[in-house]
Amino acid sequence: MSNTRVLPLLEPEVPGGVAPCCPPLTERPLTAEEAERTARMFKALGDPVRLRLFSLVASHEGGEACVCDISDVGVSQPTVSHHLKKLKEAGLLTSERRGTWVYYRVEPSVVAAMGQMLGSAMS
Amino acid sequence: MSNTRVLPLLEPEVPGGVAPCCPPLTERPLTAEEAERTARMFKALGDPVRLRLFSLVASHEGGEACVCDISDVGVSQPTVSHHLKKLKEAGLLTSERRGTWVYYRVEPSVVAAMGQMLGSAMS
Repeated sequence: MSNTRVLPLLEPEVPGGVAPCCPPLTERPLTAEEAERTARMFKALGDPVRLRLFSLVASHEGGEACVCDISDVGVSQPTVSHHLKKLKEAGLLTSERRGTWVYYRVEPSVVAAMGQMLGSAMS
Repeated sequence: MSNTRVLPLLEPEVPGGVAPCCPPLTERPLTAEEAERTARMFKALGDPVRLRLFSLVASHEGGEACVCDISDVGVSQPTVSHHLKKLKEAGLLTSERRGTWVYYRVEPSVVAAMGQMLGSAMS
């Protein structure tokens, strides 16, 4: 017998409008609204250049990087900036301006939530 | 001091050409080839309808579902079949025909590998 009752979720207030979401994928089907929100994050990582940039930031010393640190992905600096902005809009990176440069960090809670959704999908 | 040496990876032979890939995103930047391969999987989950279908299969009793079990996502059965095929091509689902219906299952190793890439991104 499966429990298909869907509990209402609190609508979290997070800068950028993106928040950690949702239960492990084995628990219950996602609602349309949850799927909309979460698909946005997966889509942001669904581009090879963006995924490389994300891994460059995630693996960079100190866990942060600026555009000046990322120059070997074969695209121009404006394109790098554009992709970093997309990752930020999806809630996967945060940014902070310090002097001339904007520094990017992985947003741990959002990325952890995505990992948890998938990581539990086969347990 | 960061270790930027990239070890060659074995090229796995998996039906559909997709295989679990790659190290946790904090470990080192992805290569272009790894990013290509992995972005395909994230992209497959980057569509709200596909993500709902994936969660419907993952959370279905017995861990598998056929198109006949999935009818409440607001799209036609051919569209459902099309999206399931895309998820299969990305290596996220496997399928097996039994009688009239094709049954879909989550491919645990691939999904676990994606979860691990993300899950370790903040540890």
